[in-house]
Amino acid sequence: MTTTDDDRRPKYQRIADSLREAIRSGEYGPGDRLPGENDLMATHGVARMTARQALSVLKDEGIAESRKGAGVFVRSFRPLRRRGIQRLAQEQWGSGRSIWSADIENRTLVVDQVAVSEEEAPERIGQVLDLGADDTVCVRRRRFVLDEKPVLLATSYLPTSVVAGSAITQEDTGPGGTYARLAELGYKPVHFREEIRSRMPTKHEAEQLSISAGTPVILICRTAFADEGRPVEINEMTLDAASYILEYDFDA
Amino acid sequence: MTTTDDDRRPKYQRIADSLREAIRSGEYGPGDRLPGENDLMATHGVARMTARQALSVLKDEGIAESRKGAGVFVRSFRPLRRRGIQRLAQEQWGSGRSIWSADIENRTLVVDQVAVSEEEAPERIGQVLDLGADDTVCVRRRRFVLDEKPVLLATSYLPTSVVAGSAITQEDTGPGGTYARLAELGYKPVHFREEIRSRMPTKHEAEQLSISAGTPVILICRTAFADEGRPVEINEMTLDAASYILEYDFDA
Repeated sequence: MTTTDDDRRPKYQRIADSLREAIRSGEYGPGDRLPGENDLMATHGVARMTARQALSVLKDEGIAESRKGAGVFVRSFRPLRRRGIQRLAQEQWGSGRSIWSADIENRTLVVDQVAVSEEEAPERIGQVLDLGADDTVCVRRRRFVLDEKPVLLATSYLPTSVVAGSAITQEDTGPGGTYARLAELGYKPVHFREEIRSRMPTKHEAEQLSISAGTPVILICRTAFADEGRPVEINEMTLDAASYILEYDFDA
Repeated sequence: MTTTDDDRRPKYQRIADSLREAIRSGEYGPGDRLPGENDLMATHGVARMTARQALSVLKDEGIAESRKGAGVFVRSFRPLRRRGIQRLAQEQWGSGRSIWSADIENRTLVVDQVAVSEEEAPERIGQVLDLGADDTVCVRRRRFVLDEKPVLLATSYLPTSVVAGSAITQEDTGPGGTYARLAELGYKPVHFREEIRSRMPTKHEAEQLSISAGTPVILICRTAFADEGRPVEINEMTLDAASYILEYDFDA
């Protein structure tokens, strides 16, 4: 294993380490103000630049965030727990509950933007949905907000040939949502695949999700399959990584 | 929905957008050199600083990376596909195959660092494993390398009371690995929970994983449960997000 010789590390790293440890131990909790540059200069006998670099390390790691004129604060991380498998169980969407309700415990997750349109299928979508060259898709774009903070962008693609004329093409899909409607149309989703990646947000994503600097996004691409492995929906989701823990529970 | 008025956006953003689109369309593929500052200055009639900012946007998003003296290149993303559920199926570890083999198709994932020790349990670990104040844990720290690039750090914690004297306390756990040994000890894992987060790496993680700037890590905390819901292992994994796609397949 790599050995760490702390004494050889730059001072700002050692200060950052001690602050990080103080946060981990709970000495500074979520939302607490961290010592400022002046405090760190006095406590550690270092120059302002060194103190600033130490705080930058924690900000770059997404542990702390600056608030203009107020200082540097421990980031509040009270994430949503998204249970990938249970939340898609049939009893969730079959009973008319929102499939999102499993996300939120007692907190209120709200759709504050929704747009539905018929569009040409992007190439990657057309390939997975096995569409012909002239086939279009119903595209449902939504943004979800928790406690007034946007946390999730979701864009669903469904074959027009499957959903034309149904409530899926409306902003309000009705009780049970898209999956209940697909079931009524004879395309009940029976299997799901979720693919997860993470990267830094694009400028547009950072704006749409009000993401703090130094915070990545999690990308989930979910494909829903009806009987005989027929793909009926692709949902591309972009999550503020600071707002979510994803959980998957399964048997060996 | 938010409307985008492209003409009002800063020039460097519009240049970054056009480069991003060219990458998405395949005009520039993984590993290709992007136009340099001089090229962008000539093509778009902008100052060097604007050209530099445009390239910075793509680097910050993790789409492109600088190579010293050679320019800016489209990042090669040939990720490992980690199938969360299938890879932990009993037939994988019961038969003596490495549970990691499902990760790698025809590529060679190698453990290049391994350390095993008996330690006091960190508080969060003791709580989940339901340990007494004096109970210790067997800690297995490993680093996994693919094509000479480190991609995964994994630290497993197992109750000493369960694993003492077994091969789990050795560097080489033998055929079938830790889970096969746990089964022999009467603690066969029958259920798993994986919790996933993403954030920027700490300095130490970035060094251990040779992570490029602007790349987050994915954290997976897996808990393995034996019969009657008894937790027998916690594995905290840190993945280079640019190297992995996580996949979960499950029925509704």
